[in-house]
Amino acid sequence: MYRIDLNSDMGESFGVYTLGQDGPLLDVVSSANIACGFHAGDPAVMRKTVQLAVERGVAVGAHPGLPDRQGFGRRNMAITPEEAYDMVVYQVGALYGFVRAAGGRMEHVKPHGALYNMAAKDPTLALAIAQAVYAVDPSLVLFGLSGGELVKAGRRVGLQTASEVFADRTYQGDGTLTPRRQPDALIRDADQAVAQVIRMVKEGKVRSQQGTDVEIRADTVCIHGDGPNAVEFARRIRQALAAAGIAVKAVGRV
Amino acid sequence: MYRIDLNSDMGESFGVYTLGQDGPLLDVVSSANIACGFHAGDPAVMRKTVQLAVERGVAVGAHPGLPDRQGFGRRNMAITPEEAYDMVVYQVGALYGFVRAAGGRMEHVKPHGALYNMAAKDPTLALAIAQAVYAVDPSLVLFGLSGGELVKAGRRVGLQTASEVFADRTYQGDGTLTPRRQPDALIRDADQAVAQVIRMVKEGKVRSQQGTDVEIRADTVCIHGDGPNAVEFARRIRQALAAAGIAVKAVGRV
Amino acid sequence: MYRIDLNSDMGESFGVYTLGQDGPLLDVVSSANIACGFHAGDPAVMRKTVQLAVERGVAVGAHPGLPDRQGFGRRNMAITPEEAYDMVVYQVGALYGFVRAAGGRMEHVKPHGALYNMAAKDPTLALAIAQAVYAVDPSLVLFGLSGGELVKAGRRVGLQTASEVFADRTYQGDGTLTPRRQPDALIRDADQAVAQVIRMVKEGKVRSQQGTDVEIRADTVCIHGDGPNAVEFARRIRQALAAAGIAVKAVGRV
Amino acid sequence: MYRIDLNSDMGESFGVYTLGQDGPLLDVVSSANIACGFHAGDPAVMRKTVQLAVERGVAVGAHPGLPDRQGFGRRNMAITPEEAYDMVVYQVGALYGFVRAAGGRMEHVKPHGALYNMAAKDPTLALAIAQAVYAVDPSLVLFGLSGGELVKAGRRVGLQTASEVFADRTYQGDGTLTPRRQPDALIRDADQAVAQVIRMVKEGKVRSQQGTDVEIRADTVCIHGDGPNAVEFARRIRQALAAAGIAVKAVGRV
Repeated sequence: MYRIDLNSDMGESFGVYTLGQDGPLLDVVSSANIACGFHAGDPAVMRKTVQLAVERGVAVGAHPGLPDRQGFGRRNMAITPEEAYDMVVYQVGALYGFVRAAGGRMEHVKPHGALYNMAAKDPTLALAIAQAVYAVDPSLVLFGLSGGELVKAGRRVGLQTASEVFADRTYQGDGTLTPRRQPDALIRDADQAVAQVIRMVKEGKVRSQQGTDVEIRADTVCIHGDGPNAVEFARRIRQALAAAGIAVKAVGRV
Repeated sequence: MYRIDLNSDMGESFGVYTLGQDGPLLDVVSSANIACGFHAGDPAVMRKTVQLAVERGVAVGAHPGLPDRQGFGRRNMAITPEEAYDMVVYQVGALYGFVRAAGGRMEHVKPHGALYNMAAKDPTLALAIAQAVYAVDPSLVLFGLSGGELVKAGRRVGLQTASEVFADRTYQGDGTLTPRRQPDALIRDADQAVAQVIRMVKEGKVRSQQGTDVEIRADTVCIHGDGPNAVEFARRIRQALAAAGIAVKAVGRV
Repeated sequence: MYRIDLNSDMGESFGVYTLGQDGPLLDVVSSANIACGFHAGDPAVMRKTVQLAVERGVAVGAHPGLPDRQGFGRRNMAITPEEAYDMVVYQVGALYGFVRAAGGRMEHVKPHGALYNMAAKDPTLALAIAQAVYAVDPSLVLFGLSGGELVKAGRRVGLQTASEVFADRTYQGDGTLTPRRQPDALIRDADQAVAQVIRMVKEGKVRSQQGTDVEIRADTVCIHGDGPNAVEFARRIRQALAAAGIAVKAVGRV
Repeated sequence: MYRIDLNSDMGESFGVYTLGQDGPLLDVVSSANIACGFHAGDPAVMRKTVQLAVERGVAVGAHPGLPDRQGFGRRNMAITPEEAYDMVVYQVGALYGFVRAAGGRMEHVKPHGALYNMAAKDPTLALAIAQAVYAVDPSLVLFGLSGGELVKAGRRVGLQTASEVFADRTYQGDGTLTPRRQPDALIRDADQAVAQVIRMVKEGKVRSQQGTDVEIRADTVCIHGDGPNAVEFARRIRQALAAAGIAVKAVGRV
């Protein structure tokens, strides 16, 4: 039986500002990555988002980011591995508070934005993040880019990891994502996106932009919550997976 | 056998800025209230302070404050009880991360500055804070001003509480602290301060500025870490307590 | 010839978060109060908003607030007059940078939210704010609640002031606004709101909730930018003023 | 007649935290670079530091940094040129407010830390910063690393620039500073430091670590305010310059 996790970033509203479509998306995804107040989110948003996810049985995960609210955690910062360790422990811990208060369980951690991207390439930074997650709770699943350094570091420290793939992004011959600045970076056709995901899950392969087949591990698919058709697109992927006999389930669950 | 806890605020450095004398004080106190990154502290400082406290066997507690770093959490803010709940859960959780990472145990929570003072007077705010602490971990001890609303709220929700008294502050006939703006607010004579603490512990009484004896419960004494003689003063209190046959021990410990 | 200013708060977006309907409102109002990065706004938003206002000939004003982004500057904080002075100088100065860079002119200052409300009641705080504005540029017009302490303080230090009234709020017999928590605080009928403004301008009077006529000075009307019908409501007021022979013009302009 | 400017970073205290020795240094330097609240400083500190500098006749300059208080603006961030422009306009403007309020004049701008270093190497970022300074006030002098991109960009946009050199840092054969991670990066001998400065001023040359003489322009010397001997070292440089017949004077002054 095939299975896959669908994850989405959530809880990125802040104060009077609202962002995303957390409610509808929580009916589609199996894992919620909840912002922890550094790049987005605030204590009130975290509480509400954790409660919603727990109520719907969606796996709760921490989504720690760089301390850059204005840049939404998307601007690379030259942080040391120790600083990465500390900011991950802090943010995972903070979300832990709300998970405990809601009587729930935290199941995973997925770094956000620039922290995610830097950790995919930098083994030292990746190791620090993995150690931070392990130190707070060794039962957490660490999400990282499929083939990237973060999942490798996670395995090295003894964490269960989840290799993340993208439905709406194209891949290069070396298994990396086509950079966003290239015109062919995005898959805009929903059927093509769905087909790519299904093949990743069933065959462990993706057709690269160079026309070659590349091996890729797919434990979880990132579902974007922004854009006017995000929820509709997410629902379509979920239905197509069901039709293809692929169960949608949070990574660490039986 | 008499006993008392000595607590001190710690981990209030931030980035390049250093504050306090955490190292020497950790040799004197039995409980460390560690700032959680809102009014003071940052993830690196929290990690280091937790590690130091755990190594020395000092009880680790969270010291959550208002989100006002420039004002050091000392300026009252008109927050709702719900906002108080959320900011306490967040900060206690964040420190929890470092405590878990250090293989330690969190034992108590003491709100900081304006949050502490507002909670001593406002039963609704106090209740929200107590509920937040209980929700994260019902085994935590809640520290509050002796006779104030916070310890009452803590008892109501089922938490163990610690009534805090001050060695270097005078008291009024109604059991409240003499406001700082009054000239007789502070006790500057060390012998008088020590005698006041010993009497509070042994007799449960304090001589008010009006000359009357007031009943007061003393579970923990606040040791200030600022000022040039802070460490010397703390050592002196500790020695005087020993000489008076009063054991110094963290509140929740046997 | 009668005249009135229509002002609206602007530039309250932040990073990835958008708020308000600045574009359409800039076609209706004569004065734009631009957030300065404390309660809302950021340097990019400030630059863009100043440019838009300058292009359309709308008077640019600074809209300084409390340093409380999560609370949108709406939570009272116990700041000292000196702290109020400093935060106003800082924020007015920061907007000044963008106004100079855009080749424009700053014409007024209107404090935001809790700072506005506290300044309406507290003469010492009001004086500190007025002195800050005067110190940066004595030609600025200071906006404050009609009948409140801020306009009084502004006059005292030698600033031109603008007494602000509200189209959609009811008034009490003593000239103060009906508190928002009361059911009759808001005027929901557009015709009634328009009539209230016209009478304020032409007769200098408003009918209070107690049925008495109260004298009120109206130099500028606050136009709210939030709510689905905000722009439509603003246009309606503007048209009604024109029909009533009342010119809409920024306060300091000839 | 030879002349040189001595500049020092100032106003880097924050809230309850104090940093640096601004008072004594203001008696030695001719230019004060005052932090603007992003990497360090706050409105109260800015006001006080501007007042002190104005009183002593020291040239006031803005010292804008990255929005990274925890990292003291020393961590590189991947900001766009537009973001650099905006944050410089904002911070220069904010300090402008205090300069106007103090009845003083702002004379220069020197970016801080990572922003300074990135601008020395990146011509696009440097241009954006220079344009920001010019847009706020074309009479300001732009300080940048001697030989770096920022002074070039400043000249290009029409600003007067000041090429900054270091007394206590060694230089490479290509005129760049020896990286701090190398053991020979710092000059610890005061006589050697003084001699290096005097030669830079009088001959426009510095002896590189490779033993070659490198041409270098020296308009201003950076005086570090940290370290126990900072003030003593600064005084010694000032005296040696006087003895060598070199006048110490702010860059833009006659």
